This record gives sequence, structure tokens and C-alpha cells, in this order.
Amino acid sequence: MSKESIGVGVIGYGYWGPNLVRNFANSEASRVEAVSDLDPAKLAVSKCRHPEIVTTTNFQDLLQNSQVDAVAVATPVGTHYDLALAALRAGKHLFIEKPLAPTSEQVRRLIDEADRRNLTLMVDHTFLYTPAVRKIRELLLENALGDIYYYDSIRSSLGLFQSDVNVVWDLAVHDISIILHILNDKPVAVSATGSSHVPGSPENMAHITLFFESSCVAHVSVNWLSPKKVRQTFIGGSRKMIVYDDVEPTEKIKVYDKGITLNGSPDNVQQLRIGYRAGDMWAPHISAKEALQTEVEHFVDCLLHGKTPISSGASGLHVVEILEAASRSIAEQGRPVRLEQPLGIREHA
Amino acid sequence: MSKESIGVGVIGYGYWGPNLVRNFANSEASRVEAVSDLDPAKLAVSKCRHPEIVTTTNFQDLLQNSQVDAVAVATPVGTHYDLALAALRAGKHLFIEKPLAPTSEQVRRLIDEADRRNLTLMVDHTFLYTPAVRKIRELLLENALGDIYYYDSIRSSLGLFQSDVNVVWDLAVHDISIILHILNDKPVAVSATGSSHVPGSPENMAHITLFFESSCVAHVSVNWLSPKKVRQTFIGGSRKMIVYDDVEPTEKIKVYDKGITLNGSPDNVQQLRIGYRAGDMWAPHISAKEALQTEVEHFVDCLLHGKTPISSGASGLHVVEILEAASRSIAEQGRPVRLEQPLGIREHA
Amino acid sequence: MSKESIGVGVIGYGYWGPNLVRNFANSEASRVEAVSDLDPAKLAVSKCRHPEIVTTTNFQDLLQNSQVDAVAVATPVGTHYDLALAALRAGKHLFIEKPLAPTSEQVRRLIDEADRRNLTLMVDHTFLYTPAVRKIRELLLENALGDIYYYDSIRSSLGLFQSDVNVVWDLAVHDISIILHILNDKPVAVSATGSSHVPGSPENMAHITLFFESSCVAHVSVNWLSPKKVRQTFIGGSRKMIVYDDVEPTEKIKVYDKGITLNGSPDNVQQLRIGYRAGDMWAPHISAKEALQTEVEHFVDCLLHGKTPISSGASGLHVVEILEAASRSIAEQGRPVRLEQPLGIREHA
Amino acid sequence: MSKESIGVGVIGYGYWGPNLVRNFANSEASRVEAVSDLDPAKLAVSKCRHPEIVTTTNFQDLLQNSQVDAVAVATPVGTHYDLALAALRAGKHLFIEKPLAPTSEQVRRLIDEADRRNLTLMVDHTFLYTPAVRKIRELLLENALGDIYYYDSIRSSLGLFQSDVNVVWDLAVHDISIILHILNDKPVAVSATGSSHVPGSPENMAHITLFFESSCVAHVSVNWLSPKKVRQTFIGGSRKMIVYDDVEPTEKIKVYDKGITLNGSPDNVQQLRIGYRAGDMWAPHISAKEALQTEVEHFVDCLLHGKTPISSGASGLHVVEILEAASRSIAEQGRPVRLEQPLGIREHA
Repeated sequence: MSKESIGVGVIGYGYWGPNLVRNFANSEASRVEAVSDLDPAKLAVSKCRHPEIVTTTNFQDLLQNSQVDAVAVATPVGTHYDLALAALRAGKHLFIEKPLAPTSEQVRRLIDEADRRNLTLMVDHTFLYTPAVRKIRELLLENALGDIYYYDSIRSSLGLFQSDVNVVWDLAVHDISIILHILNDKPVAVSATGSSHVPGSPENMAHITLFFESSCVAHVSVNWLSPKKVRQTFIGGSRKMIVYDDVEPTEKIKVYDKGITLNGSPDNVQQLRIGYRAGDMWAPHISAKEALQTEVEHFVDCLLHGKTPISSGASGLHVVEILEAASRSIAEQGRPVRLEQPLGIREHA
Repeated sequence: MSKESIGVGVIGYGYWGPNLVRNFANSEASRVEAVSDLDPAKLAVSKCRHPEIVTTTNFQDLLQNSQVDAVAVATPVGTHYDLALAALRAGKHLFIEKPLAPTSEQVRRLIDEADRRNLTLMVDHTFLYTPAVRKIRELLLENALGDIYYYDSIRSSLGLFQSDVNVVWDLAVHDISIILHILNDKPVAVSATGSSHVPGSPENMAHITLFFESSCVAHVSVNWLSPKKVRQTFIGGSRKMIVYDDVEPTEKIKVYDKGITLNGSPDNVQQLRIGYRAGDMWAPHISAKEALQTEVEHFVDCLLHGKTPISSGASGLHVVEILEAASRSIAEQGRPVRLEQPLGIREHA
Repeated sequence: MSKESIGVGVIGYGYWGPNLVRNFANSEASRVEAVSDLDPAKLAVSKCRHPEIVTTTNFQDLLQNSQVDAVAVATPVGTHYDLALAALRAGKHLFIEKPLAPTSEQVRRLIDEADRRNLTLMVDHTFLYTPAVRKIRELLLENALGDIYYYDSIRSSLGLFQSDVNVVWDLAVHDISIILHILNDKPVAVSATGSSHVPGSPENMAHITLFFESSCVAHVSVNWLSPKKVRQTFIGGSRKMIVYDDVEPTEKIKVYDKGITLNGSPDNVQQLRIGYRAGDMWAPHISAKEALQTEVEHFVDCLLHGKTPISSGASGLHVVEILEAASRSIAEQGRPVRLEQPLGIREHA
Repeated sequence: MSKESIGVGVIGYGYWGPNLVRNFANSEASRVEAVSDLDPAKLAVSKCRHPEIVTTTNFQDLLQNSQVDAVAVATPVGTHYDLALAALRAGKHLFIEKPLAPTSEQVRRLIDEADRRNLTLMVDHTFLYTPAVRKIRELLLENALGDIYYYDSIRSSLGLFQSDVNVVWDLAVHDISIILHILNDKPVAVSATGSSHVPGSPENMAHITLFFESSCVAHVSVNWLSPKKVRQTFIGGSRKMIVYDDVEPTEKIKVYDKGITLNGSPDNVQQLRIGYRAGDMWAPHISAKEALQTEVEHFVDCLLHGKTPISSGASGLHVVEILEAASRSIAEQGRPVRLEQPLGIREHA
């Protein structure tokens, strides 16, 4: 691609759209050509902040604009499939909010469409680009924790009840994307339970266990009806353990040199001896760089150099497949649901 | 019973036995007649602390001692059944460590034996007698929280790995006993997952969901391999919510006047409106009275006046049945296990 | 005053000015007529956000504008005296950032000028209008704490080093204004110590003790060079005690029913007995209303109805007098400095 | 000294005496020969725990016992001088509770007596032997923090009101001993304020500033009437900063790689630029070894090898001199009190 910077069109200027516009506009490698929203009042706000960006109530204007190389979609999930398909068919690269689409079937079709046209498709799993998660992944890649035993997370608050999506699709989606990103392991089954305490509403509380090929296990607890905001993840390894607390303003990650030491051979269980080890704790400095800035730079880089994004379509598909399996398990009070052989989503790593 | 105080014999003077001896000895309504332990060194310690108490390496001496009205058993769980049965057959009332016995079948036989002989049988579920749990139960009984939506608990630390019992029987037993005690609801099924990270060892990490007749749900997370000690329980109700943090030295219970308010009729889900409410937080003063003191006084009171203990044999059976169901579910990766119609354990309430 | 709403001119559109403009513009009882700043780029920002507001690089335009009833000054403290005097002489009511002026002498002249012209003069001691401080004052006014024994505060962080003002004038000014506002007591002397750890820079760390007519004492600790942000105040009373932690997102105020109880008569000290009392803790819900909104509404109300503001000129003078006394004491390593008979600043209460 | 182990006599078996007996008895290099107390009931407790140790109600028995090489005094401070003098005159080495004696004059006489007789005199400033303070001293000795800017400590709780000693002699004594131990700097003056809120009682709240030859400053805040227990010390250096929180069960010390960086020459203040630096935080593992065990081993080692103890008589004198100066400053509302040229107490380092 020979152009100096990538032209981006943003569909949807509601809650998240303004952040996309600001970051694509501020990035050296991209510019925002146009913004569309059904609500003229929102477009007026965009005009005030970014007078140079064209606004329109018709997203088709973006698709027909030859200056637009890529489209970013920040609309309700129910509209994702149609908008994404139209964008890809218009030959635009695609950056789209999570979850990619409401069903894995739709996600597969979008991936096919992008592949056929050789277009970049990237889902906005923002947490993967936070300095905290990047630091955790770095620690795991360099094997600082040893064998990973578990990932155990709580994500709860007195949160907004959604009417069209349950707490799993709203909150657990973050943890699922993080788990797939940082653990070098294949999930093979899901057992989940959930409950709704508001008649006629989707589940507002759920607990998900994800089984892996190894003895590693992941557990995610999500709740819209908690008196306190909790964003806490424990990651246990044979050498070290991490506590990642996203509510902490600065020391988000603490690495504990704690654990057990096995003495004696596993063949002789009777003589198994467990020693306990407690060493230093270390909280690495976490950069304050905005995740979305890292993310849009990555999108542009992938697009320019034909790389597969970290949060590629295949990655977004894997997340949606697990959300679907969790939903099936919840409907049967925890009955384990096998996961299909996952797509090879980590080739980019 | 016409005697001035109850004579107690304590079997086992290891980790917990000394606490039993001290509390039975200090209580006005009881006295300790004799202590037995296989280890003479431990008996010497008892002698130094309580010169007036007879010591013996043969527990039969206690059973044959006519001054002994009740026997307290604080030995490894594998010995519970035989010792308990012998004590009951000798006509002694029984106070026994948790869990009552390794199988529900054995527990049932002990209950039968006690019933036939009209003897008091009480399990030492100490948490039920802590000022914190008593205060929570009091709040629930007076309906301060409204409808109970959930009980969600974490009990973890870098804890001692047991070789004969997994983390569910070691730690979750506390939560199960608390749940059955404070919730006026019938558990109907269990889904649990667990994993072992030490080859040849029992599960060191588990997550249990307990389903009830109502839409209430309980979840218990236990872990022997956590870098931090966590003892935290969230209880959500329609009116208020509780956070019970047992690691806190003083403000163990916080009652939040937080929640959602439903407007509009449930018949018309489309018009359902949820309002959010945030009010005061209140941390009731929690007495510093030792739980075991309350507990031994309760045991003596039940024994003297023919009352059913709060932690009766039936209550201990219910706990063991749930532990067994959880173990079965863990073996099948979360498949839900139905619970038999529970015994009417709450008649005493 | 017969106009429908008060016309306000804001001088200075740097860090704080935009907040003043937004709040005066959003308040029903006021509107912003004009904004002045020396920097045209800042005026352009104002124009984008508030297209209807006139902008100018010359503050004299505001003073000559007959639609401007009141002027708000948000410029560096070194310019306060000249701008304030000019505004008052132009017949404008005055709302001015803290500290009112660099010396008590200048503050007195501004008060005189405002008094002679019957104009409202109000200093922006924002903390007095926060929901947390208002709640504390309410509790003290209703005597919930009993006799006040002490106010002990820490305000520290790795904060911006100022070049023209030391940490006392930058941070302790907040506590001094709060202390004078909530304690119904007269400060009579100040002892303060401070130190600078950067050659040629003003003090970056200081400790101030304020003595009162009663046995109540206030202590303020401020530090620009702390590894952690601390905003914590303890208020001890004979009946209850408050911990006010402004870093807490929600439970900013905790009221402890803790203290000592005196038995026996104080005439007979030998028989003095002290009992210890520990009761409930209570965290009242704190409104999320922006302090500045409350404050500008109060300013307009005072102006319209001839009331004396809570943070009047006299109040601002009292604060500056104490800051001056603290500076003198710091220069002499803690030597106590008597305070003049304070002005009757609490008549408005 | 050719004996295999040191014979110790302990005077006073009240609150602290049992800890001394246990530690001297458990140490390989010492044994307890005899314990004296005026209360026979306390001696009975000692007898039960340590049947081999002689007990007596007459401390003279210890002084006349030739098996007793050293005497440990754990009695009320008012009795320290007479008991210590008698022990030294009987040729016994001396281990004595803090504060060494009620006046610096008495302390000087005891030091003289010990010096003349070539006997070891050590004060029990236990905090100096805690793993946490030892770790802090180690970090400071290896210059990990760079230049030390300040030591700022809070030690408060709803603590026992003493009738014979104020909060400075009860609590600040700990910080003063730590400050003198870890800072390689000479205190030159003290400014302190304090107040009593109970008629006829000594001060229950105080704030002390200690000035040093360098620009380093120490501040100690103590309070018997606080709703929360606080044991928190901030130590600021040019390179790193420490937060030492003794209420934390495990992570007592946190080392922050935070601070400011000075650019430009101090000769040219106008061009002074301050940069802010935020790096990793690190909590070194703190051993769980009991401080008193380390301390009695150190005492015996000093005694056997003629070393000067860390908490020598001279060190205890320095602490008492500062407490006296603080008391004088409190009486004059913060007026700074110069400190005499301190004794060369750090020669041992």
C-alpha cells in the first residue's frame, strides 16, 4: 500500500466511537476520513471536536468513499454482521467491536469473506492491548511462572443490566479473550452455571470453568449485581504466581515468588513431600499508554504489512465459540460441553 | 440430668483437642474429667496445663468412666466412625470434629445409634458459632436483605496440602455448613469442577455451584495454592448485600444498601426498567467472643435440655451428602448431580 | 437584582477555567457572557465547546461589558490582586481561585474594596463544597461526634513541585480551609516545621500543628515527595470518630462508634478509670454531585440575596493568615506563632 | 568466658518476662537459672512451663546466685534504676526493658557503672531486631535509597492509656530508636506538640519533628485515641522510597522506584527542571524469625565476645535524651529544643 497514511471511516459515534475516532485521528499512520451515525446530534459533537472529518447519517457514504481504506464498526452487536459484510464487500479492511457477531456461524462467514478478499479483519478485544495484559503475556512467554496451573478471575460490580445479552457475553468475553491470548494451551471443554435474578432478564451472574489439554484450568466469575467493583485475576504457576487487580490505580500486577516445591519422585506417591516457598513480591511498572492507541497502531501495521492481528477474526471466532459453549452449559446446569478442535489462532504469535 | 455440671472426656490432644479441653474446662456448666491421646508427650502437656484432669493413652478408660457424660472426639477423620460408635454404645453424648465421618452411610449409622439411645450428637462446625456468621444469620432471619439472590465465597491461601482429603472436604466444608445454616432454602443440585496440580495428590482447587429450589444460587471457590489468603463472601439480596471478609481484623461484615429496583410489571418484559440504588454502608460491631466457647455452651445446653443442636447429626449428614455430590460432579467435569430430598435439618431453627 | 440570570465573565481558560465556564454555563441561575485568556489557542477551545460565548485576549473587555455582573478569576496567584481589584472597581462581583492573594495585607484591601461597593467576594475553596466535607460538617453540627479532640490529616503524593509556592500554600491550604469551616473553635497558635529537599526550591514537605482555644488540636501533614497518594483525615471526638479518605472511590467517610469512656470524677484523678468502647462503623452514602456545581450555585445565591458566602473574603483572609503564620513558624523550626484575634468569619453559619 | 552457656536470671514475670524466659531458655548459648517476681501466682505459671527453673519472690536471690551471669529486667520503668544498679554492682551483665530509665541522668549513671565494671549493658529496643527493620537498615546501608530525605511515621490505635507515662514515652520511643539505628545522621533539634484529651492524664497524642545535620527530617505521629490501628512509615530517598506497614501480615516493606530527577545545575535555579520517575515496586521477603530470639542471641554474643550491643546503653541514652527534649518542646507548644552533641553511639556499626 503506497499511501502515506490509512484512511479510516468510523460507523457509530455513541459510547465507544469517539475513542476510535480520536485514536485513529491521532495516530501518525492513519487519519479519519468520515464518521457516520444515525443521530445527527452525535455527528455535531464529532464536527466540533474534529472539524476536518466528514460526517454523514448514511454509512454507505463511507463504503463508497475511495479515501476510506478501512472501516471501524462501533454499533450494537445486532448490527455487526450486516455492516461488517457490507464493508468487506466494499473492499474495506475491518476493525470491529467485540463480540465479532452474535453467532459463530456469522463470524465464520465474515472470516471467509475477509480471507477471500485478502482484507484485514480485527476484533476490538481491547484488554489484549492494555499494558497490564501485555506485561502478563510477556512474563508467561519468558516462562517466569513455570507451568501454569490456573487462571482464576472475578469481574463484578453493580453493573448495567443489558437486555439483549447476558453477563457472560458482556463481561466474561474479556477474560476469555485474555485466557486464549496468554495461555499456550488448548481449551477442550467448558462447564458453566449461571442465574438470573430479574424475571425475564438474561443471566446476571455466572461461573465458568474452562478445561485445557494440560492440567491447567481457567475459572471466570462474572456478576452484574455485586456491591463492590472487583476486577481480580489470580494466575498460579509452578514457580511464581500473579495477582492482577485492574481496580488498583498503579500496582495492577503483583508477581509472588510463592509456591510449593515437590520433593521425591511422583512414582512413589507415599513418599511425596511438599515444601512451601515464600519469597519476594514484585510489582512491575505498568506503562500508562492507552490500550486503544496500541491497538489502532497494530491494526494499521497489520493492514500495511499483511500481518495477522493478535485479535484476528480467528481469535474472535474462538472467543465466540467458547461463549456459545458456556451458554449451552449454563442451560444444563453445568453439564460439560466439549469444544471443537480450535482453529489455529495462535500462528501469529 | 441432676448433676451440677457435665463431665466431659476428650479423645485426641493434638491440634484442636487443647482448645476443646480449655473451653469445656472453663465453661461453668461442664468440666473435663479425662483426656486420652496415644502420645504420652501430649498428655504431659495437658497435665501441666490442667493438673486436675486425668490423662490416659487408652480411650476406653474414658468410655468406662462413669463421671464422663459426654465424649469429644478430635482425632483424624479416618478414626471418627469407630470412636464415635464406641462412645455412643457406651452411652456417652458425642461432640465430634467435622466432617462427621468420611461417608454419608457411616454418618447415618451414627445418627441412628444416637437416636436409639436418646443421646445428643453434635458436629463441630465451628464457623456457625462465630460472631460474624451469627450476625449474618440474624440479619437474614429478620429479612434485612430481602430475597436472597446468591452466596458467593472464596476461601484460598497457600494452604497445607492434605494427603487423605481434597480441598473440598478440607475448606469447602466450612462454606457448605454456613450456607445450609443461614439460607432458608433447599439445595437441589450441585455442579462442581476441580483439579489437582500435584501428581498423585487430591484436588487442590475447586469451584462448586449449589442450586436451590428458588432462583438463589451458591458458589464456593476453594484453593490451596493461592499467593494470597482470601476469605471473602458476598451475599446478594433484593434489598441489601453483605460482604463478609474474615481476614479483616475488625470490620468483618459490611452491609451495603445497594441494589437494583425493578419498575414496571414482569408481565411486560419489554417495558422492564431497572433502577440502581446506592445508599449507606454499615459494619455492625462483631463481638470478640471465641466461637468454641459459644459452641460448647450450646452443646451442654442441648444435652441438658434435650434440644437439637444447631450443628446436629442431621446437619452434619447434609453437609457430607453435598460434599459427596460435589466429588461426583468433579469426577465428571461439572455434570450436575441431583441431591436427595434433604433431611429436615432445620426444625430446630 | 431583576435580571433572569447572572452574567459571568471568566478570566483565565487554563487548567481550572474550563470547569468554571462549564459550571456557570450549566447553572440555571447564571450564564457565561465572555471568556478572556492571553492565549488565543485556549480561546479557540472555548469557542468550540461553547460557540455562544464571546472570547477575548483582553480582560478589560469583560470589565467593560455591562452584561457581565460577576467576574471569575482563574489565573496564577501572582496576578490575583491586580485583576481582583480591577474587577471590583468596575463594579463586578468576584469569584476568585484560592489562595485569595499572596499576602493577608492584599486580601484585606480586596475585602475593603468589596465591602465599600457592596459587592460579593467569594474564594474558591472547592473542598468546602464537596459532598464529603458537607457531610462531615453536618455530622459535627448535629454534635454526632461529641467534643472534638482532634483533626489529623495527611495529604501527600508524588506531586508537582511548584516553583513559586511551597507545599503549605499548595496543599495545606485545603485542610486549613476545611478545619476553619467544620470546627467551631478558634485557632490561637501555629507550630510548623518544613523542609526542602531540592536545592533552591520551596519546602516540599511540612507538618503543621494548629492550637485552639479548647483542648482540640489540628495537625496537617503535606508532602510532594511521597511514593503513594494519601488523602486521609482522622477526626476524633468524645463520642465518635471519623476517617475521611478522599482516595476511596465511594466509601469516603467512615464513622466509628469507638472511643473511651471516663468513669469517676476528674477532681479525683487517682481514681480516674478509662473504659474502651467499640461499636458499629457506618459509611454514609456520599452524593456524586460535583462540588463546583454546588459552589457556583451558592455564589449566585449569595449575590442575588445579599448573603455572605461560606468561603467569603473574611474566610479566605483567615486561611491566608494561618498560612503566613505557618510559614513564619517553619522558618524558625517550629517556634509557635500566635494568631491575631480572628475575624468573625463564621457569622454566616 | 569459658562456660558452655550463659546463665540468666529474669526479674519480672508479668507481660514481657515470659517472652524473655522462653527465648533465653531456647537459645543454645544461654540458659535461665532463676526467675523472680513479687507475685507467687506468676512464679507458679513459670514453674509449670519451665519446671527446671528456680523461682523466687526475692530478686536478691538472683544477684547472689553465682550461676547467674546476666540479669534481665522486665519490671515497671519506675523500678529500673534501682534494680539495674543492684544487678551491675553484683557483677551481673544487664539486659533491660525500654526505656532504660526515666531520666537521662539515671541512664548515664548506669552506663558509668557498667563501663567501670566492664559489664555488658543492653536495652531491649525490640523493633531494631525485627526482620523488617533489619531489612530496611540493610537497604539503607547499601545506599539503595540514595540520599535520605525523610522518615515519616504514624503509630496510632485505640491504645491503652497509661497513667504514668505519656504517648511519646510509650509509642514514639519505638520510632526514635529505629530512626537513630537506621539513619546515618545526627539529630540536632526537636520540635514537638502534644495534647491530652482526658483531664489529669498525660498527653495521648503527639507529633514530633526531628531535625538533622543534613536536610533530612524525621516526623513521628503517635496517638492513643485513633479509630484505626496504623503502623505506617514512609522513608523517602533520592533514588527510592520505602513504605513500611507493620500492620500488613506479610508484605511489610514496599520499595518504590519512584522519585524526582533533577536536571540542570543548582547554581541556576531558574533553569531547574524536575523530572518525575515511576518504576517497579518490590516487596522483599521478610523472615518470620521472632525479633526477641535474634536479640537474646545478640546479647549473649556481645557478652561473650566483648562487643558493644546495637542497643547499647549509649543508644538507650540517646533515645531518652530525645524523649526528654520532645517533652520540653511539647510543654512550650513546639518551640525547638537543641540536642546536646550526641554520644558516639554508632561506633558499633
